[in-house]
Amino acid sequence: MGIVGAGPAGLTLGNLLREAGIPCVVLEKGTREYIETRPRAGVLEHRAVQMLTEHGLADRLLQEADRHGACEFRVNGEAHEVDYATLYDGQTHYIYPQQEVVQDLVRVYVDERGGEVRWSVTDVQVHGVESTEPALTWTNADGTWERLDCSFIAGADGFHGVTRRSIPAGAVQEFSHQHGIEWLSILAEAPPSTHKVIYALHPDGFAGHMLRSSTVSRYYLQVPVDDTVDNWPDERVWAELHKRLALRDSDWKLTEGRIVEKRILDMRSHVVEPMNHGNLYLLGDAAHIITPVGAKGMNLALHDAEVLADALTRYHRTGDETGLRSYSDVCLRRVWRAQEFSQWMVFMIHRSPEPFLSRLGQARLEHLIASGSSAGYFAQNYVGP
Amino acid sequence: MGIVGAGPAGLTLGNLLREAGIPCVVLEKGTREYIETRPRAGVLEHRAVQMLTEHGLADRLLQEADRHGACEFRVNGEAHEVDYATLYDGQTHYIYPQQEVVQDLVRVYVDERGGEVRWSVTDVQVHGVESTEPALTWTNADGTWERLDCSFIAGADGFHGVTRRSIPAGAVQEFSHQHGIEWLSILAEAPPSTHKVIYALHPDGFAGHMLRSSTVSRYYLQVPVDDTVDNWPDERVWAELHKRLALRDSDWKLTEGRIVEKRILDMRSHVVEPMNHGNLYLLGDAAHIITPVGAKGMNLALHDAEVLADALTRYHRTGDETGLRSYSDVCLRRVWRAQEFSQWMVFMIHRSPEPFLSRLGQARLEHLIASGSSAGYFAQNYVGP
Repeated sequence: MGIVGAGPAGLTLGNLLREAGIPCVVLEKGTREYIETRPRAGVLEHRAVQMLTEHGLADRLLQEADRHGACEFRVNGEAHEVDYATLYDGQTHYIYPQQEVVQDLVRVYVDERGGEVRWSVTDVQVHGVESTEPALTWTNADGTWERLDCSFIAGADGFHGVTRRSIPAGAVQEFSHQHGIEWLSILAEAPPSTHKVIYALHPDGFAGHMLRSSTVSRYYLQVPVDDTVDNWPDERVWAELHKRLALRDSDWKLTEGRIVEKRILDMRSHVVEPMNHGNLYLLGDAAHIITPVGAKGMNLALHDAEVLADALTRYHRTGDETGLRSYSDVCLRRVWRAQEFSQWMVFMIHRSPEPFLSRLGQARLEHLIASGSSAGYFAQNYVGP
Repeated sequence: MGIVGAGPAGLTLGNLLREAGIPCVVLEKGTREYIETRPRAGVLEHRAVQMLTEHGLADRLLQEADRHGACEFRVNGEAHEVDYATLYDGQTHYIYPQQEVVQDLVRVYVDERGGEVRWSVTDVQVHGVESTEPALTWTNADGTWERLDCSFIAGADGFHGVTRRSIPAGAVQEFSHQHGIEWLSILAEAPPSTHKVIYALHPDGFAGHMLRSSTVSRYYLQVPVDDTVDNWPDERVWAELHKRLALRDSDWKLTEGRIVEKRILDMRSHVVEPMNHGNLYLLGDAAHIITPVGAKGMNLALHDAEVLADALTRYHRTGDETGLRSYSDVCLRRVWRAQEFSQWMVFMIHRSPEPFLSRLGQARLEHLIASGSSAGYFAQNYVGP
C-alpha cells in the first residue's frame, strides 16, 4: 500500500493499516518538522475522537484537548449562545490544533508502530492505477530514485497534490463552487478571549474568534474579494477585530497577541466523484475541499481514512471487496452533508451583496437563536453528524 | 377606516374591525362573483385557522376542510413521506381553497355583520397618508365619484395594487429577488390522486401534486424560464405530470381531469420595509410576495390582518398606539422567516444549473428524509411558523 501525503488522512490511514498488519509506506514532500508545526484546523468532532481513541491514537488528545459544547453568535453588539452539546446528546467538540493531531499520528506510526515514511520526496508519480499492479515512483531527499509496487494507492496529498491530477480527464466528475467570499485568517499567540468560538456578524463583514489552545487563537475577518495580506498590517487587523467582535454594554475585550500567520482564504468547495479511480483512492482534501465554516475539513479527512482502512482490512483478511466498492459512496454521503451544512452556515453568517438574500441570512440566524427546531438542526450538523 | 382590496387580508381585517365596532369600508375593483371564484392558494396553517375560529370565521372551514399532516417527496421513483404533524405537536394543515375562504369572509362581513363593500370600483386614489386625515377617492360602478375620509387606510390590494405605489419613492425600502425558476400552474377538475401533497424531484424538473378539494387538484410543473402557456397543450401537461410523478414498482397512477386553469408563475419574492407609511398600512401581497413553495402567502396575509386589527382595536379603545407602531416589525418577523424557509425549500426541490449547488439541494433533501433534526426544522416551518 502506498500512501501519498502525511496529513491527518494519510497518517491515520497508515496507523490503522499498521494496526491491521497491512504493509504500507507514506510519501511526504515536507519534512517531519514541517508537517508537525504547520497550523491549520483545530476542531475535532465527537465521532472523530471516538475513532482515534478506538485505535489508540487519542491518548494525548484526551488529556490535553479542551471540550466545547457551546458557541456564540454576536449580532448588533449582542451575544447569543447556542449550547449545541445539550441540544445533541451531550456531544462536544474537541479543540486540538491540527499540528498536534499530526504529531500524535506521526509518533505512533513511526516511533511506536515502526511505520515507514519517506520525507522530503519529490517528483512523485502514480502508475497503472487502472491495473491490479499500480506503482509509485519518486525521488528521495538524498537524490535516489525509488519505486513501490503495491496493490492500492491512497491519495492523501491535498487539493494541489499529484494523485488527483494523475486521474485521466473525464474519469471522475469534479464539482466546484466559489462562494464569492474571502477571509483573512490570522493566527496569534494570544489566549482565548472567551472560552467559546464566536461568530460575529457586523455590517462591515464577518469576524470569527476560534479556539486553538490556551496560548494560541485563530481569528477570521471577512475581507473584500481579491484583497491581499499586504493590505492588513497587524494594527489594522486588531482594530477591525476589536470593532467587529465588540459587545455593547460590556467590559469584555479581545486579548491581543503576536500574530504568527496571516493568510487569505477564498471560500470554495470542491468534490470529486467518485473518490476513487481504479486502485487509486482519494482521501481528505485530495478528494474534497470545504469552506472552514462548520469546521468539517479535518473531520471528513479522518472519516475517509477510517472507511478506507476498514475496507482494506476486510479485503486483506478475506478478499471481500464490498468495502472498497462502497468506499466512495459512504464517504461522499458525509461529504455532501457537510457541504450542504457549511453552505447553510456560510449564507447565515455573511451578508450578501443582494439585500434580499442578506435579509434571508439574518432571518436564518434569528431563527437559529430563537427556535428549538433550528438549533437542533444546527447542533446535529455542527457537532455531529 | 378604508380598506383597499377584498382578498383574504382585506376581508379578514374588515371582519375583525366590524366585530370590534370600528367603522370601515372595503373597496374592490372586481365583482363579488369574481373574487368568490378566483382560484389561488389552498393551504391554511393551524394558527391561521385558530385565528379565524376565534373570530367566528371558520364555521364552514372546520366542517369541510381536510386536515393534512404528511407530505411526500418523490425522488428517483421512490416515495418518502414526512409526517410533519407528528413532528410538530400534532399541528396540521387545513386544505381549503382560497376562494372558499373568501366566500366565507364575504358572507360574514356583508351578510351577517352588515359590512360595506364598494364593488367594481375604478380610479382608486390614496390621499394624505402622511397626515392625520388621509382619504380615499374612487369611481363607483355606476360612474359616481366618492370620497372616504378616514383615520387609517389599509392597503390589501395585492402586488399590483395602487396603495403601495402611492408611497413616495424612498419612503420605504423594497427587497426583491428572482429565484430564476418558472412553474406552470395547472388547476384541474380531478380528485386527488393520493391524499397527500407530493413534491417530485425529476431530472427534467420539479413536479407538484397539491390538494384543493375532493373534486379539484392543483399541479405544478417546473418549466424553462420564459416558457409560455401556449407551449403546454393539455396532453403535454398530463404526459409530463405522469412522467415526473411516476413511482417505480407501483401501480399508483395520476388521475386526470378537465384542466380549468393554466398559468405561468415565476418564482419571485418581494418585501416592503416598513409595511406602513404614515397612516397607510400594507397587508398581504401588497406588502410581500413569496413563492408558492411552502404555501405561506395566504397565511402571511391573514397574520397581517390579525395584527393590524388588534392594533387598531387597541388604538380605537384606549388611544394606545403601541400596536400600530410595532405592526410592521411584528409582521415582518414572520414574513422574513417564511421567506427564508421558502427559499430553503425552493433550493431543495429544484435542481440548480450549477452541478455543485444541485448536489447540495439533493443532500438537503436526503437529510430531511433521513434525519430527525432536519425533519423537525422542516415540520416547524412548514406547518408552523
